[in-house]
Amino acid sequence: MSAEPSAPRPRTGVWLVGARGSVATTVVVGCAAVAAGLHPATGMVTETAPFADCGLPALSSLVFGGHDTVDCPLPKRAEALVAGGVLPHGLPSAVQGELAAADREIRTGGPLPGDTRSDEELIESLAADIRDFVRRGELTRTVVVNVASTEPVATGPAESGAAGAAATGAAESGAAATRSEAALPARLPASSLYAAAALRAGCPYVNFTPSTGLHHPSLRAVASGSGLPYAGRDGKTGQTLLRSVLGPMFAQRALAVRAWSGTNLLGGGDGAALADPGAAAAKNAGKERVLTDTLGSAPEGEVHIDDVPALGDWKTAWDHIAFDGFLGSRMVLQTTWQGCDSALAAPLVLDLARLTARAHEAGLSGPLPELGFYFKDPDPGSPSALAEQYGELVGFAGRLRAAR
Amino acid sequence: MSAEPSAPRPRTGVWLVGARGSVATTVVVGCAAVAAGLHPATGMVTETAPFADCGLPALSSLVFGGHDTVDCPLPKRAEALVAGGVLPHGLPSAVQGELAAADREIRTGGPLPGDTRSDEELIESLAADIRDFVRRGELTRTVVVNVASTEPVATGPAESGAAGAAATGAAESGAAATRSEAALPARLPASSLYAAAALRAGCPYVNFTPSTGLHHPSLRAVASGSGLPYAGRDGKTGQTLLRSVLGPMFAQRALAVRAWSGTNLLGGGDGAALADPGAAAAKNAGKERVLTDTLGSAPEGEVHIDDVPALGDWKTAWDHIAFDGFLGSRMVLQTTWQGCDSALAAPLVLDLARLTARAHEAGLSGPLPELGFYFKDPDPGSPSALAEQYGELVGFAGRLRAAR
Amino acid sequence: MSAEPSAPRPRTGVWLVGARGSVATTVVVGCAAVAAGLHPATGMVTETAPFADCGLPALSSLVFGGHDTVDCPLPKRAEALVAGGVLPHGLPSAVQGELAAADREIRTGGPLPGDTRSDEELIESLAADIRDFVRRGELTRTVVVNVASTEPVATGPAESGAAGAAATGAAESGAAATRSEAALPARLPASSLYAAAALRAGCPYVNFTPSTGLHHPSLRAVASGSGLPYAGRDGKTGQTLLRSVLGPMFAQRALAVRAWSGTNLLGGGDGAALADPGAAAAKNAGKERVLTDTLGSAPEGEVHIDDVPALGDWKTAWDHIAFDGFLGSRMVLQTTWQGCDSALAAPLVLDLARLTARAHEAGLSGPLPELGFYFKDPDPGSPSALAEQYGELVGFAGRLRAAR
Amino acid sequence: MSAEPSAPRPRTGVWLVGARGSVATTVVVGCAAVAAGLHPATGMVTETAPFADCGLPALSSLVFGGHDTVDCPLPKRAEALVAGGVLPHGLPSAVQGELAAADREIRTGGPLPGDTRSDEELIESLAADIRDFVRRGELTRTVVVNVASTEPVATGPAESGAAGAAATGAAESGAAATRSEAALPARLPASSLYAAAALRAGCPYVNFTPSTGLHHPSLRAVASGSGLPYAGRDGKTGQTLLRSVLGPMFAQRALAVRAWSGTNLLGGGDGAALADPGAAAAKNAGKERVLTDTLGSAPEGEVHIDDVPALGDWKTAWDHIAFDGFLGSRMVLQTTWQGCDSALAAPLVLDLARLTARAHEAGLSGPLPELGFYFKDPDPGSPSALAEQYGELVGFAGRLRAAR
Repeated sequence: MSAEPSAPRPRTGVWLVGARGSVATTVVVGCAAVAAGLHPATGMVTETAPFADCGLPALSSLVFGGHDTVDCPLPKRAEALVAGGVLPHGLPSAVQGELAAADREIRTGGPLPGDTRSDEELIESLAADIRDFVRRGELTRTVVVNVASTEPVATGPAESGAAGAAATGAAESGAAATRSEAALPARLPASSLYAAAALRAGCPYVNFTPSTGLHHPSLRAVASGSGLPYAGRDGKTGQTLLRSVLGPMFAQRALAVRAWSGTNLLGGGDGAALADPGAAAAKNAGKERVLTDTLGSAPEGEVHIDDVPALGDWKTAWDHIAFDGFLGSRMVLQTTWQGCDSALAAPLVLDLARLTARAHEAGLSGPLPELGFYFKDPDPGSPSALAEQYGELVGFAGRLRAAR
Repeated sequence: MSAEPSAPRPRTGVWLVGARGSVATTVVVGCAAVAAGLHPATGMVTETAPFADCGLPALSSLVFGGHDTVDCPLPKRAEALVAGGVLPHGLPSAVQGELAAADREIRTGGPLPGDTRSDEELIESLAADIRDFVRRGELTRTVVVNVASTEPVATGPAESGAAGAAATGAAESGAAATRSEAALPARLPASSLYAAAALRAGCPYVNFTPSTGLHHPSLRAVASGSGLPYAGRDGKTGQTLLRSVLGPMFAQRALAVRAWSGTNLLGGGDGAALADPGAAAAKNAGKERVLTDTLGSAPEGEVHIDDVPALGDWKTAWDHIAFDGFLGSRMVLQTTWQGCDSALAAPLVLDLARLTARAHEAGLSGPLPELGFYFKDPDPGSPSALAEQYGELVGFAGRLRAAR
Repeated sequence: MSAEPSAPRPRTGVWLVGARGSVATTVVVGCAAVAAGLHPATGMVTETAPFADCGLPALSSLVFGGHDTVDCPLPKRAEALVAGGVLPHGLPSAVQGELAAADREIRTGGPLPGDTRSDEELIESLAADIRDFVRRGELTRTVVVNVASTEPVATGPAESGAAGAAATGAAESGAAATRSEAALPARLPASSLYAAAALRAGCPYVNFTPSTGLHHPSLRAVASGSGLPYAGRDGKTGQTLLRSVLGPMFAQRALAVRAWSGTNLLGGGDGAALADPGAAAAKNAGKERVLTDTLGSAPEGEVHIDDVPALGDWKTAWDHIAFDGFLGSRMVLQTTWQGCDSALAAPLVLDLARLTARAHEAGLSGPLPELGFYFKDPDPGSPSALAEQYGELVGFAGRLRAAR
Repeated sequence: MSAEPSAPRPRTGVWLVGARGSVATTVVVGCAAVAAGLHPATGMVTETAPFADCGLPALSSLVFGGHDTVDCPLPKRAEALVAGGVLPHGLPSAVQGELAAADREIRTGGPLPGDTRSDEELIESLAADIRDFVRRGELTRTVVVNVASTEPVATGPAESGAAGAAATGAAESGAAATRSEAALPARLPASSLYAAAALRAGCPYVNFTPSTGLHHPSLRAVASGSGLPYAGRDGKTGQTLLRSVLGPMFAQRALAVRAWSGTNLLGGGDGAALADPGAAAAKNAGKERVLTDTLGSAPEGEVHIDDVPALGDWKTAWDHIAFDGFLGSRMVLQTTWQGCDSALAAPLVLDLARLTARAHEAGLSGPLPELGFYFKDPDPGSPSALAEQYGELVGFAGRLRAAR
């Protein structure tokens, strides 16, 4: 872990969109637990050797807040995660101070059902919440990270430049809510409102979900003119992580993948959100991109995402890869990944918050393709193979170190 | 495929130790089939873009011969592989000319049971066979590749410098045979006799098996003074290939692998040979090395190799990887690889023969760690992660291209 | 195998609806191969000890014909199955006489696109084809077996009594074809037209598919008044077979299944047919019934059927079963079944044809719930657990034996 | 659950050999939890409908005690099982009264290292412990159940009638201990000493482990003359349970199983005990018996049991079944079973204790083959297929009911 000075040190804010969800709760609990030495930093890449002395903010200097549309207190949320086997028993009470502190810094997001504010009013309101957080906490800088449930793919107008209809039914960590499309003019997706608010508040932005966020056409000019760094999208935590090392393996060995099929089973809020075909489509686009990019063309095969409430936050991903070898021999690789979604995501969120904060400090702006290691759908310029992405990330760490 | 000149062109020999085995037969059939355009070059890395214009010998210029201690004719062996589903029906007859030609160039290896010749006599005899092959075929150069069944780990004396006891019970492609240890002085392992013969005949040497070959201490000086290039050992075709991409994935993501267990089921000659605990030990050492190297330490877990004759040349490898994520959450990845052993190995053997021949032409000598991409137990200086090995290999191709 | 008399013996017809499909072709080739002693009777339950001396027609006495709407000759179809790895090389030519004989007895089915005949005209025409087959072959009796591709679930009117719209897009073995619904009055599903024709021709009927067949409300009276035996439906060849032994295991051990999820990958004609959501729904209803029946209630979880042309006739079924043990401990069973669809189905079709022919000879009529062993959706009165179904089947064999 | 009378009711003792092990601890905690209505009776077959009104002792009437050679207090052992994810958090404290009561009734077993008592002295001492337990508790009857770690297969003399060498290295729940073979005369295996003590104390005996127990030749006469019921051996909780339904499925469908291979990964005490090749051999004999019995002959294939401490009490069993279908088509079924060993075993132990106590009450004596449902290696006269075993068990319940 990087050395921490004894002098009054700068504090860095992490503003989580979807702040009462499983991922956000695990981020807050885990950061406190690792900072206090209660658990090793397993899963946190920024705590490994190549990232030492890069000037990343210390875990103990991170301050959490965020938006959500549900009002379950964080300590209660944490206990539910204990019951579900996500967090170790006793950990929430061991870090109750940090949980309560974060809970106090969560504000109601939007738009809520029946909300008649304009996009502009909403963005300004959300940005004000963030600015207040920064001021209250005397924070040197704050990174906004979207960890809300996946929203459905915006259709038609949203893609053609005009503001599209926004709607998320995020059962679990609803940072946004549905409104009647008929009653109001076209609106930006909720994720884009939050992204715009981040920039307006002068904060770097990370999109850990497949939602639109800064990718909305109407935000292009705002993003590029903001002078802020941003990164995304869609954290790579299981099936796609595997695909980003197996796809290159087949390609490098000149083996001909004929069909790559996959099924994901998961409960929790994300399972329910992805039972929506639109949301699943957003997720699957990222999953298939890595295959097309690394194999050179898209193989046959579908990807299913099933909502299985009995599994809770635990997800199982089965992949079946039919490939041809020499002289047309037919071979098969199958993989089964059984992991805890929030435990896979949380350390990456901490990594991203730290790296993006440091990039901001170092004066970087615009997309950060060097963070493609973390994403299913990385910013342009990122390679698709994990090994190359890791190389880029380590190189980026080197540049941050040199910039000190 | 690389352009092939119309002028009388140089021919390159490939001398296979274990020339009547499944792998060797698939090499001969497959080279002819791909050269004739009957099948695509699936699985041959040297036929992909990064290897164009490197001066590799054309497939149609390769001439095959070799040693074996069994006498099943190659065409008959090929038909057996058709019956076992390894080769497509009709292919052996389509390339019968090439099969018959290779069959004529196979000589009886040694030592046979009761063989009383000294190591020196054996090496000289084997080298004479190779020299005759080169002369008869008017070959520009010849690469010797060991594809015989795995021999047991040599113990004690062999490792301490003196010549150890050699014994292989290669049921299927016996390039060597057992003799009574009591009746004779200590002898080099059979694989080392073949390796020494290759160097003596002025030929580059590739060890595709886990057998000792050039790794015998008494051959160190011979190898380094030969002025010839060589590479090895133990072709990476399934479970270890997977491990060489999955191990780095866990390491790069800072996930803590607690146990990595594996079971391999295979029939064919290799299954029988590896039912010998000594031979299995040789193989497993390579399999575990990649984990230790890429994870930083050896996880718990064993590797089993079961002889299951019903599976024939088809092998199944199951891996179970228990790992810890953030805050100690316990996760599991399982993989099942179902492949045809010979079809996986043969294109790599062709790759290695071509690359090593070209390295010889380019004046290189000594170990070729740049070929670590192909091996479980690569030469010193090779990284262990497949992606890095691929980078080294492509860089090597670039140097070969530059040397034209 | 049952003893076969030397005297001029009775011949039994097997009329296959979908006679040029993979299953039908495998039935014809396999029956000839086993009768000739070229292959053991693997997969044929009626060739095991409990079925000896039951008076089943000998395999060598079976005569094949059928309906189809495609016109690929059977010998050519058989060669395609060789290429796909379903039939052993050389077998079609070894039984070319039988293949040609069956090919001559295949008639064009219906309704074809644009067909303006009424249901009554179609049924009469199809029945006439069957009667001609019986007369030409001097057959003692003939069983009609539906092995055509699955047709979509008939909706609304079909279920309420009136004739519904029939449409099958059986790419591979089209025993029927689509027509414009708008241009014609409501029509029985094609499978029901064939079933009605079977009864009209005085033949027992077996439905090996999930299609409607005799289950159409408008055929109830016809079926019960026919005096003929019939059985169905939907042959149980893989995932559901497994579920019919695993479901009872969980129930008998009082383990609480919380979610049972499944994915099927298959190519071939059935894969394409089942890519139609309607057809998949028909299939899945049968798959889920066995769980509800054996577990006592329906667990969470979905079933997917993916068309993966690269897999050809080979199918892979993955099941993931999340269950609770003592004190709420969470456990998982996963199964992966890799089989050849036609090779799994064909011996069961032969079993069913023989058993139903013998039941007819023994004077039985109406549904045969004792054949529930073979079906996903058996006739009322059949248990759902495989072991009980097997007990019923063996008991049935005993009654057939006693009736001689 | 069976009705429980309000009058002073009879109490039934359960004396556990290996009383401080994971299984025993789960038995005590689970019995109390289910009796108190804190958890449903998942996994307890005797709590399902067919066992109502059979006169089984109520769970709340069971009283626990036992032997062990380690001295970890039960409440502490229970907390360790919570940490390992075997028991739900909070449950040990909810049933602390019952845990403490059972803990007080545990006596030190034997022989301990250096123990110089004769077999006869040991048996008498162990029997005295049991008699004291019965008297102190005013128990109507007591069943002795062996749940200690597996001991190695006794060799040579033990099998030929004379007393063999006993040695168990049960790391976790040592109900016995090693002594120097050289220093003492041949001795009965520890499990047989406990079994003999049970009979001497007038108690029915159940062997839930693969250890010798009553199967020792020198105990035959004692057992048959005891007038007591007994049952065994080796509880069927995972891989073998699956095999007992899958084996019959293949047989009933006339599919030809060619190879059945398996690997078991488990930590905990049983994993360590089974790392001993002798103990593993005892376990594997039971596992393979079910295949030979249900398939008619033993297929190819091995079974591995790996000690993987990282898995704790959780075990994973992978089975790979290669089978032939019609016309020689090659198919594969794979299963992966992930379960908690103690949670699988404990409800079966409770079932067996209740059923055997009731059998004793009903005046039955000798082996109880009707309990074969629970065992890998059931008493002679039991079928091997689970469905048939279940039928026998339900029939047995009917006889117990009739005997009231």
